[in-house]
Amino acid sequence: MKLQTIIRDQDRLFIGDQVPEKYKSDHFISDVAKVHAVALPISTEEVAELVQYANQESLAIIARGEGTGVAGAQVPIKGDELIIDVHKMNRILELDEETMTLIVEPGVKNGDIQEYAESRGYFYPPDPGSKHSSIGGNVATNAGGMRAVKYGTTRDYVREMEVVLSDGSVVSLGSLNIKNSSGYDLKDLFIGSEGTLGITTKIKLKMLPLPQYKQSALMAFATLSDATDAVLTILKLGVDPTALELFERETIEYSEKFMNLALQSQKGQAYVLMTIDGNDNEAIIGKIALVEDMLSNDALDIIPLPNAEEEKKTWSLRDNILTALMQFTEYEMLDEVVPINKFAEMISYTKELQQKHELKVINFGHAGDGNIHTVLMKKDLDEETWKKKRKAYLDDLYEKVLELGGKPSAEHGIGLVKKSYFTKMSNQIELELMRKIKYALDPDNRLNPGKLI
Amino acid sequence: MKLQTIIRDQDRLFIGDQVPEKYKSDHFISDVAKVHAVALPISTEEVAELVQYANQESLAIIARGEGTGVAGAQVPIKGDELIIDVHKMNRILELDEETMTLIVEPGVKNGDIQEYAESRGYFYPPDPGSKHSSIGGNVATNAGGMRAVKYGTTRDYVREMEVVLSDGSVVSLGSLNIKNSSGYDLKDLFIGSEGTLGITTKIKLKMLPLPQYKQSALMAFATLSDATDAVLTILKLGVDPTALELFERETIEYSEKFMNLALQSQKGQAYVLMTIDGNDNEAIIGKIALVEDMLSNDALDIIPLPNAEEEKKTWSLRDNILTALMQFTEYEMLDEVVPINKFAEMISYTKELQQKHELKVINFGHAGDGNIHTVLMKKDLDEETWKKKRKAYLDDLYEKVLELGGKPSAEHGIGLVKKSYFTKMSNQIELELMRKIKYALDPDNRLNPGKLI
Repeated sequence: MKLQTIIRDQDRLFIGDQVPEKYKSDHFISDVAKVHAVALPISTEEVAELVQYANQESLAIIARGEGTGVAGAQVPIKGDELIIDVHKMNRILELDEETMTLIVEPGVKNGDIQEYAESRGYFYPPDPGSKHSSIGGNVATNAGGMRAVKYGTTRDYVREMEVVLSDGSVVSLGSLNIKNSSGYDLKDLFIGSEGTLGITTKIKLKMLPLPQYKQSALMAFATLSDATDAVLTILKLGVDPTALELFERETIEYSEKFMNLALQSQKGQAYVLMTIDGNDNEAIIGKIALVEDMLSNDALDIIPLPNAEEEKKTWSLRDNILTALMQFTEYEMLDEVVPINKFAEMISYTKELQQKHELKVINFGHAGDGNIHTVLMKKDLDEETWKKKRKAYLDDLYEKVLELGGKPSAEHGIGLVKKSYFTKMSNQIELELMRKIKYALDPDNRLNPGKLI
Repeated sequence: MKLQTIIRDQDRLFIGDQVPEKYKSDHFISDVAKVHAVALPISTEEVAELVQYANQESLAIIARGEGTGVAGAQVPIKGDELIIDVHKMNRILELDEETMTLIVEPGVKNGDIQEYAESRGYFYPPDPGSKHSSIGGNVATNAGGMRAVKYGTTRDYVREMEVVLSDGSVVSLGSLNIKNSSGYDLKDLFIGSEGTLGITTKIKLKMLPLPQYKQSALMAFATLSDATDAVLTILKLGVDPTALELFERETIEYSEKFMNLALQSQKGQAYVLMTIDGNDNEAIIGKIALVEDMLSNDALDIIPLPNAEEEKKTWSLRDNILTALMQFTEYEMLDEVVPINKFAEMISYTKELQQKHELKVINFGHAGDGNIHTVLMKKDLDEETWKKKRKAYLDDLYEKVLELGGKPSAEHGIGLVKKSYFTKMSNQIELELMRKIKYALDPDNRLNPGKLI
């Protein structure tokens, strides 16, 4: 079997030197000189044949979608990989209104799914930072995002998934049944496995009815610790926020400069941006009023955003933090997570470490989930100092994450970037279980070797 | 190592002939003449040592809690098993109000957890038929029950679990983090694995705040198919029922006779019993009124049960169906599940098969989940005819379950009783994946061999 007989369109196959640069290097990881080939299949059959080809040729396989992953799971490391880029498998196949499910191919972008659903009165809640990320990648990392505090993560929306296994066989995991006690839960094992157990080729997603109303409110606090206290207060009120984001003044300033737009509040050091949705607008307004009441003594500003235009503007400042930051400095974004009762302690520790290591960090994150995006900023450090400080900072940070019962990754995955910390932080018996499963399902270590575990 | 040095209390160890009968036989499965031993550990250390002992002596291990399982997963089949009965590991260890979690040992009864939680203002939703079932068993089968339609199954409430693996090592799976993308989801793999991958020795359960109000309503319908239509109508209304049970008139008559108590409605062939809970009593009453409105033309009776005494009485009739049935006939209860849009078709097919095979069946079940308890009744059939008819009935029934995209077990597990149908109904590649995982984690097939897969 030759690659050219599997992928017959020339524009869907790059071999050796033809492989475009973007497949070989990544912002976060050092690049490789070459890879074996990049194939862009358009069907499950082609994916299966590509996997068979890789077996025949003893090649490592890396599945890749839009390539927006920030943990390096989609990056080649040995130089002889076959990269299976599924981004041309981007069809929305079927909306079944009776079961409220949507079948999509793995290359469909998250934002396109959200848009498609909403245009038909449905709602797909998982909302990762990058709307350009592919749903296959979302499944591979169990992507979370803004609305996880109320609606859960990608895992909670995958009803069924079709997967090509390491030997090229194809299997469907999961079902439409709400309850199930019939064998091992393989679907959840494959979700979040970062392409190390199989390649997802089709996904049946759960849709929700689109909530009719939503409203946001922006709250300003004198200190970061006042803001984290407010997050816990809001969670305990039972107002069930759709999103509960926290960011520092100095974080949002990058967005303000980049977008040439001022946040509605300029007071204090930290902000909480909350959205509440539902079908009863009175109830939403009541919940926002309750939050206002409870925080009236603690907040410097509480600004409800009933005007859709204003709301959108405020959220666009939040959404553009990373894009903005890119204009100003090289950086590394983390996605550590801790139990919600340890969130304040964790976030304040990131600032202690800033002092200790003299390395500038800013924070933003999904406060309602205990998920922090700490951003380490290179600024004008030279490469060597940056690397040294980065390592020293991360060593301390992940030790604290572990101490607080947290995990290195909430939603981006381990990939290559966090692998050394993940393996150090994990219980060795647990890690051994993962390795045994990996070996059992992929004995030749063909699928994304060297990643995750 | 000898058993007597691991378990030093005589009353916690039964060897060979000393083993009480209840461990050797089961209502549903043929019995064995003997087992190697039964040990009742009181600590994780003892469980681990027992597993090491079994390895040393090449014994199969069966973990057992209260023994209420109906799929035969806790039943010995070879006669040389070491049964580890954890029902003395029955301490409620710690309620952590900050993280709203409760740490329990595996032998604690589900009903005791519910009671403990409620006495402290918390709520543990999973509510299987048997309140005497142990939480370890609930985890092993991913037990569901009445309130799964709103609150999910046991899986959704296990935050962390401590497990003794096949080699006697101890590992903790899961975490308190709400989001996680750090390695394979082992916790969900172990939940529902029916003692074939490890023995659970400690569980950290998620608690909810106890809803302040609840109210039920009983609805009567002329036909079974009217009742299943009503279930779909209710689900589409968005009233978010806590429980949505369906039973036939002839099912509840056994309870009525047994309890000498009449159901509030005597009309029609089938009933739907619904509960709605929450913190806003007006809203609950409004939702019940909405259901009344929507079903006023379809139901023969709609009886709200605002009186707690009346509500309790009605539910006790539902709860006692199986106990009542036992007085009248030998039976086999199934727990098939189908996607909710196929529920009506499935339940009506059970009646077609009743005609075809001349075998009396009655139905009740968790209609909101698509989970039916079809009960095959022996009545005055002789043993041979019963076995023959049972097999013919099940062959047809499970074929239909498969055709409708269902699963053989929603909440009881596969165990021994459903194993042949499960393996036949499963995709062979999927089954092979399960076997590879089983072999990887338990290479000597020490843990509950011959069950599930």
